Amino acid sequence: MTTKAANPYGFSRPHLLGIEGLSPPEIVDLLDRAEENIELGRQPSKKRDSLLGRTQINLFFENSTRTQSSFELAGKRLGADVMNMAVGQSSVKKGETLIDTAVTLNAMNPDVIVVRHNASGAVALLAQKVDCSVVNAGDGSHEHPTQALLDALTIRRHKQRIDGLIVAICGDVAHSRVARSNVLLLTALGARVRLVGPSTLVPGAFREMGLETFTSMREGLKDADIVMMLRLQRERMQGSFVPSVREYFHYWGLDEEKLSYARPDALVMHPGPMNRGVEIDPAVADGPQSLIREQVEMGVAIRMAVLDAVVNARGNGGEAFR
Amino acid sequence: MTTKAANPYGFSRPHLLGIEGLSPPEIVDLLDRAEENIELGRQPSKKRDSLLGRTQINLFFENSTRTQSSFELAGKRLGADVMNMAVGQSSVKKGETLIDTAVTLNAMNPDVIVVRHNASGAVALLAQKVDCSVVNAGDGSHEHPTQALLDALTIRRHKQRIDGLIVAICGDVAHSRVARSNVLLLTALGARVRLVGPSTLVPGAFREMGLETFTSMREGLKDADIVMMLRLQRERMQGSFVPSVREYFHYWGLDEEKLSYARPDALVMHPGPMNRGVEIDPAVADGPQSLIREQVEMGVAIRMAVLDAVVNARGNGGEAFR
Amino acid sequence: MTTKAANPYGFSRPHLLGIEGLSPPEIVDLLDRAEENIELGRQPSKKRDSLLGRTQINLFFENSTRTQSSFELAGKRLGADVMNMAVGQSSVKKGETLIDTAVTLNAMNPDVIVVRHNASGAVALLAQKVDCSVVNAGDGSHEHPTQALLDALTIRRHKQRIDGLIVAICGDVAHSRVARSNVLLLTALGARVRLVGPSTLVPGAFREMGLETFTSMREGLKDADIVMMLRLQRERMQGSFVPSVREYFHYWGLDEEKLSYARPDALVMHPGPMNRGVEIDPAVADGPQSLIREQVEMGVAIRMAVLDAVVNARGNGGEAFR
Repeated sequence: MTTKAANPYGFSRPHLLGIEGLSPPEIVDLLDRAEENIELGRQPSKKRDSLLGRTQINLFFENSTRTQSSFELAGKRLGADVMNMAVGQSSVKKGETLIDTAVTLNAMNPDVIVVRHNASGAVALLAQKVDCSVVNAGDGSHEHPTQALLDALTIRRHKQRIDGLIVAICGDVAHSRVARSNVLLLTALGARVRLVGPSTLVPGAFREMGLETFTSMREGLKDADIVMMLRLQRERMQGSFVPSVREYFHYWGLDEEKLSYARPDALVMHPGPMNRGVEIDPAVADGPQSLIREQVEMGVAIRMAVLDAVVNARGNGGEAFR
Repeated sequence: MTTKAANPYGFSRPHLLGIEGLSPPEIVDLLDRAEENIELGRQPSKKRDSLLGRTQINLFFENSTRTQSSFELAGKRLGADVMNMAVGQSSVKKGETLIDTAVTLNAMNPDVIVVRHNASGAVALLAQKVDCSVVNAGDGSHEHPTQALLDALTIRRHKQRIDGLIVAICGDVAHSRVARSNVLLLTALGARVRLVGPSTLVPGAFREMGLETFTSMREGLKDADIVMMLRLQRERMQGSFVPSVREYFHYWGLDEEKLSYARPDALVMHPGPMNRGVEIDPAVADGPQSLIREQVEMGVAIRMAVLDAVVNARGNGGEAFR
Repeated sequence: MTTKAANPYGFSRPHLLGIEGLSPPEIVDLLDRAEENIELGRQPSKKRDSLLGRTQINLFFENSTRTQSSFELAGKRLGADVMNMAVGQSSVKKGETLIDTAVTLNAMNPDVIVVRHNASGAVALLAQKVDCSVVNAGDGSHEHPTQALLDALTIRRHKQRIDGLIVAICGDVAHSRVARSNVLLLTALGARVRLVGPSTLVPGAFREMGLETFTSMREGLKDADIVMMLRLQRERMQGSFVPSVREYFHYWGLDEEKLSYARPDALVMHPGPMNRGVEIDPAVADGPQSLIREQVEMGVAIRMAVLDAVVNARGNGGEAFR
């Protein structure tokens, strides 16, 4: 008995597994689609019906209140039936169970499964086992494509372009799927991306990709249009050199003095949740150059666009996203 | 970048933070609005559409299956998209994180956030940081306004009035936000409120407010129309004199004998969950004078009225509730 | 104050507490109703409106991601407002609290409560205390009626009948509510049911019911049309003889060799979640004779039929299910 027999819609639906593989026009298309959702989200009635009667499952193997909430609201505002499944890491016995879970959920005929997992590549593996669309909500240190898309949307709304901007991504680049997805997206759209942080946290592989790397905030932030801070992922730093929090903040934490090295109209971003006083000073996080709150709002708008796109791709010519 | 720029609906929306500040006509208006929801809840189809397309977030820093369920059903029956966020006390690092959580959720453009928190004043603090409506679902030992409203609705349906009734609130008054909200509401509507319990649990502040206090149930319940029992909050009694359960029940637990001190048509209430055999005898809790089950039903009706009122207040002249 | 006064719909609504008591025409009616839901679940829009405006509460005292998800999706696809309540076993103090929980939820006017509990009979007890419909989602080692119904639906779709089939139920029969419900349903519809497993796990009571029992897989599977494997419930085997996993698999685990004892067109089933390599070989679980994935899909279809039937029974002549 094959899955195909059980489900006549067993074609390979479009997924969003990463920024890698998306063409610049596909990225711009998603940003454009998201724009209309921003206005909608500010109306009293925030509903569209493009996923009415559809089923969305949020399958989170890693806890993330913020990202899961954003996807949940996005799906509900599109009219989907949304089901949350928080799978405790403890109750999962690796590989095989991931597949069994995926196969079981797939048999319930969802239209899209949104997956977060702590292993790089787990989401792509899962996507091979199901008939429905899969959206990567973060896998290990691999990719977090909707974060990069929402960051690009936020930037574009304030600078009216991505092309030619100098974007400094600062901090714990080594462990950051956010950094990886942002590097891919921003360079695809023509931005000049710099990586800034202690040498232990800025991997050489990026230098080989032709990106500029800096260990000094003063040099790295010079003339930057966007200063994108990353969360210090202390729980992922096994075996690495871990500086003390105080030392880290002194050299790489974004305070008003370091921000002054960038362009006067530079904007500050952070994917959240912030370690205030570690990678960013509260005065900057809450200051006039900060876009941090707006990033959250753009998150819902982008996720609506992505869910809509992957589920309804077939009708629009299909297979748009990998 | 201000919140205002990110959200053009950045006006100060009406909240329900407590009974304090509500005028008697405002209280009566909410009770009247709730009446129609009672009938609706007994129909096969229990839906209204007054919050269709709206977003409600239940943000519970303290666990409460009962209250959260009541708000969840209330929102869903009004057509809202409801999202539950149970925030483990352990994962919250006080003050700052409360604000960061509020600011993040606010950026997702909810219409109303229902908040329970173990610190008095936390809900009012949160309300200052968001653009949407905020409903207090219980904050520390401060207020629990929807509980007082549902109690008043239950009483009014059986006694056709509040004015002039003698209401004895019995037990752990000191630690009870339910008692506090009920005292405010019932006295505002003209009831004569008595507080009955061991002197360590009936604070002097109430006496200074002109309320009658009693340590004897026999005296306190004499001629009472309503006997409102409180849950013994043993987990909050650090440093206080804590009587043994057996001793407590002997002196202040409501059994049939003590109930006979009140009027023959006296009605018995309890906000739940009950400690059977501690503050109330099961025979009384399940007896013919008990309104305890009906209070739960009134809870959904009142919460529908409150959610509707705060979200749609603007259209009705606005700023009705603080 | 009685529940009746608080709720004018206080008639005894139909429940689904077990297969016991269902007549063969009632079983067939549910299977027939489910057929149309299968097709619906494969459409882009999977919604019906037969429970629009109704309230469904999933009250799970035992954790079960799979069954709860299936009921949640079933209810949502019928248009119901679905509320999940996971009640930690630890926070429940047996009997009395079960009743208090039921009475409280009942007062919120749900139309149906779906209950899983680790004590046999708990669901029937709860059903006596509420006005709404109750569906048993598994109680102790008593019954799991929707599992038996979905199994029957799966079999019927492939064999076009139940009557006359030889069904071998294999493994931990002693601790299995799935086995019990399946024995009742399959024999009611005319199948010849065999129980196969170590003598410690195949209770004598079944022999007294006239069922054939086998300790040898070779003999038990001979000429079988259906091989239904059970999950080894190691957590429930206190005091029983517990074979080692390796020993168990050697004698009773379904691998390709043992499957060859059955009819060449025999089909393999498992209620999930599987212990791969314990009661079933992955090659068989994922092989061409396996219906395991399809069972999950049938689960949603059956639960839609059951929820619809119990809630709307009144309009159809009522009192159809006990």
